[in-house]
Amino acid sequence: MGEFSTADYRYMARAIQLAKRGLYTTDPNPRVGCVMVHFDGSAEGSIVGEGYHVRAGEPHAEIHALKAAGSAAQGATAYVTLEPCSHTGRTGPCAVALAQAGVARVVVAMGDPNPQVSGGGIEYLKAAGIQVQVGLLEADARALNPGFISRMERQRPFVRLKMAMSLDGRTAMGSGESQWITGPQARTQVQRLRARSSAILSGVESIIMDDSRLTLRADQLALDNAAEIVQRQPLRVILDSRLRLPLAAACLREPGRTLIITTDQHSEEKRRKLAAAGAEIQVLPAEGGRIALADMLRWLADNEQVNELLVETGATLAGALLEANLVDELQLFVAPTLLGGEARPLFALPGITQMADQKRLTIKESRTVGQDWWITATPHAD
Amino acid sequence: MGEFSTADYRYMARAIQLAKRGLYTTDPNPRVGCVMVHFDGSAEGSIVGEGYHVRAGEPHAEIHALKAAGSAAQGATAYVTLEPCSHTGRTGPCAVALAQAGVARVVVAMGDPNPQVSGGGIEYLKAAGIQVQVGLLEADARALNPGFISRMERQRPFVRLKMAMSLDGRTAMGSGESQWITGPQARTQVQRLRARSSAILSGVESIIMDDSRLTLRADQLALDNAAEIVQRQPLRVILDSRLRLPLAAACLREPGRTLIITTDQHSEEKRRKLAAAGAEIQVLPAEGGRIALADMLRWLADNEQVNELLVETGATLAGALLEANLVDELQLFVAPTLLGGEARPLFALPGITQMADQKRLTIKESRTVGQDWWITATPHAD
Repeated sequence: MGEFSTADYRYMARAIQLAKRGLYTTDPNPRVGCVMVHFDGSAEGSIVGEGYHVRAGEPHAEIHALKAAGSAAQGATAYVTLEPCSHTGRTGPCAVALAQAGVARVVVAMGDPNPQVSGGGIEYLKAAGIQVQVGLLEADARALNPGFISRMERQRPFVRLKMAMSLDGRTAMGSGESQWITGPQARTQVQRLRARSSAILSGVESIIMDDSRLTLRADQLALDNAAEIVQRQPLRVILDSRLRLPLAAACLREPGRTLIITTDQHSEEKRRKLAAAGAEIQVLPAEGGRIALADMLRWLADNEQVNELLVETGATLAGALLEANLVDELQLFVAPTLLGGEARPLFALPGITQMADQKRLTIKESRTVGQDWWITATPHAD
Repeated sequence: MGEFSTADYRYMARAIQLAKRGLYTTDPNPRVGCVMVHFDGSAEGSIVGEGYHVRAGEPHAEIHALKAAGSAAQGATAYVTLEPCSHTGRTGPCAVALAQAGVARVVVAMGDPNPQVSGGGIEYLKAAGIQVQVGLLEADARALNPGFISRMERQRPFVRLKMAMSLDGRTAMGSGESQWITGPQARTQVQRLRARSSAILSGVESIIMDDSRLTLRADQLALDNAAEIVQRQPLRVILDSRLRLPLAAACLREPGRTLIITTDQHSEEKRRKLAAAGAEIQVLPAEGGRIALADMLRWLADNEQVNELLVETGATLAGALLEANLVDELQLFVAPTLLGGEARPLFALPGITQMADQKRLTIKESRTVGQDWWITATPHAD
């Protein structure tokens, strides 16, 4: 990394900061930021234009930055958090636009994770005589888009499992009653996790129990652009192998789409009724009577462009995803309360019968949020 | 508190610091520190002697400080974390010694919590013409001796419940296997909790399951004076209503006393065998076939001078103590691991069946210890 100056770090950090402004709105596109800088012989340089991708269908970050720079783009260094595209999508290739504007140097944080197009933008720029450097603050740039990268590299979403629990590891009373274990500040953070996700996944049992709406609510997001954010409701995905979802389920009456994933073990009549109630229904392969989880994730990536998937469900589905090593990140909200041994457990993990089988976690971050803790952890692969 | 100078605060803080040196050794006496200061017209003053209570049967803090001060005690201010005694115990009354040494002023952090003698030392000093002030840093002084104060004021020990758990609230596999959930640094802290306790309480089920020794181990304490500390092993108290403790139990072969508390529902033959194996046996009242917990605690305070009681047990006894509001403090060691819904729960709390019954906690402190968390919490009274 000796090839990058301290000014390079600073401007790429700014580009990453800009990219984050699109956290809740770019889906299914990646969050990308771009900064145009003129050095004119100084080591410090000065920004002549910047931009970020706001929303799919609107211009990419580079186009916004070029527009802001105007004729100053000539001879500038462009800092971009993701390799500029070279294919003509809805907005025209950014690599071509950078070259046409006379940009002299392009610094890219990370190459395009899509194996179909990776390297194409960089090659185009180099062929146009532009100096290109790749890999500055790559880890930070990757952290902007865990879902997009996962979809491109692994053909499945980045799976984030959220659980709200008591200190003794319980998510609800034995009756199912669970409102509320955690406080309003924790619930605001859950709303924001929903807002950055392409889709929210739940099991039908949880929906039957809680009648969750699984929607974004502008008043709970507590963000300046909340009204804009809630215009895109994450896709609601309900695993329901035998189509037991009640026709009166609240989520069917909410804005946005509800997709029920089922198996061929369902009644056609219920299917027609659910479709009439507004649900979309997709039949996917089963394993032992249950929806095959890895196949389901791949289907969501391939057919619904699901980048980040937020799982909000009960112990059975949560445990099955964990045991199948399909959880990339745990988001645990822990309330300072005890519910006792009769209350509902956090995870069913029937495969764990001895200490050697335990599911070790790495704690990435632990914060207080209101009266509660908010723990981000990653499970160790078996 | 306007009556105290900043120098007064500083010297009392020093006396409290000295008292803490007796944390692991004064039992069943309280931890007490004393500082002798000469002001000679300056606001700052200077220390002419200090001391702390080390061990029952040895001199009190004031006597050590007077000895260190020698003739300089004449005209000094004595800072003592606890009201000096006026009764003749094994070491002679400290109030008399302070007066005889010519001390001019005594600052006391807290009065004696023993209602039988409270105020007597202060009255004696006042009658001897000494200026006495009470209440400086009282909360800090009380925190030195939660158990001694509880025994004096409430006729029961301060009950500290320690649990080692996974992040999903599990203490062992379904089989009972539990070694080890937490890491060696957490276990060192548990050893220190044992070392400051008069007694360790466990249920017979836990002993049968784990064959715990419930002893202090010098190598695990990781303290300079570990060899000295382990000379006093906390009393091991096992609740065993029908005398099911195996004669081969490891704790019966350890240094220190093992006291089995039972009910009249036991066999005389087993009682003789356990006594022959080295156990002491005490019959106490039962409630519904189980040892009456509040009576048991009172008995331990009255008959065994138990100040701080560390409970190390399973979900049933831990839950019963919590439900009876007999737990003063929770010490939870939480490992970053998941054991799943088939593993053993933290607390059986059969009385909790709806969210309104939940047992709310106040988190007093949360630290990392090795890979684990160490949480100190207090349950809210119902």
